[in-house]
Amino acid sequence: MIFSMEPIGVVRTPYTDTGQVPKGRGAEHQAEGVLEVLPHFELGLTDIEGFSHLYVLWVFDRASGCELLGTPPTDTRPHGVFATRSPRRPNPIGLTVVTLLGRDGPRLSVRGVDMLDGTPILDIKPYLSNVPTEALRRGWLGDVEASWR
Amino acid sequence: MIFSMEPIGVVRTPYTDTGQVPKGRGAEHQAEGVLEVLPHFELGLTDIEGFSHLYVLWVFDRASGCELLGTPPTDTRPHGVFATRSPRRPNPIGLTVVTLLGRDGPRLSVRGVDMLDGTPILDIKPYLSNVPTEALRRGWLGDVEASWR
Repeated sequence: MIFSMEPIGVVRTPYTDTGQVPKGRGAEHQAEGVLEVLPHFELGLTDIEGFSHLYVLWVFDRASGCELLGTPPTDTRPHGVFATRSPRRPNPIGLTVVTLLGRDGPRLSVRGVDMLDGTPILDIKPYLSNVPTEALRRGWLGDVEASWR
Repeated sequence: MIFSMEPIGVVRTPYTDTGQVPKGRGAEHQAEGVLEVLPHFELGLTDIEGFSHLYVLWVFDRASGCELLGTPPTDTRPHGVFATRSPRRPNPIGLTVVTLLGRDGPRLSVRGVDMLDGTPILDIKPYLSNVPTEALRRGWLGDVEASWR
């Protein structure tokens, strides 16, 4: 069973090389970018201005292959791909939460991009709710961060 | 440019019909289910037990067509598809945050499923951080909820 996905637009970001994207310990994604939605999908953005944060689903279009077990930049030990944000996934879909800064027709200005410039966007969704912070456990990443303190 | 996605497994849920899935005002997703990952992807689940919450990316495989402007069950006014969780999206990808209850090999027991039984899974990612609650604005949905009070 194969599902075919076609981009609804592209992301404009300051990054042309993966080495430029902040990764690992203390990485913060404050970079600004633009979600450029194709004109024939613009109607789908109606009322999006009211949301402070959006989920962007996108394609790791310049990653290759899949690695079920890999060592992320934050750690020295390997972890399963579904327990990391590695680009080398069975389905190379990326997920980023961005802050919506403004809209100009089919162009959404956002903060928090971590994709390469020109990355294809598959979907945009409203960010509706948080997990209760006291219930959140962050696995190996929480362990690594605790070791930094 | 077309990207082909192949499921990594399926979700087992109590729902066989979309009418059974809680939707709209006051809907809570407390239903338990199982993410059944295909055996050859099981290695990718290594260390996932440490995370309390996961993102599940899945396919609305029984939805048809795309509606750029639609009226969600929570409101009487239409909104753009990218400002809603409508299944009738250009790329029919669903996104659900679930609580991880336990793991038995390639099977993850979770709470918070809102998919139909047998729904294909595209990806599983760790839930790492919340948006600052004081910064979160929820657009038309926040307006509708305020009108209920």
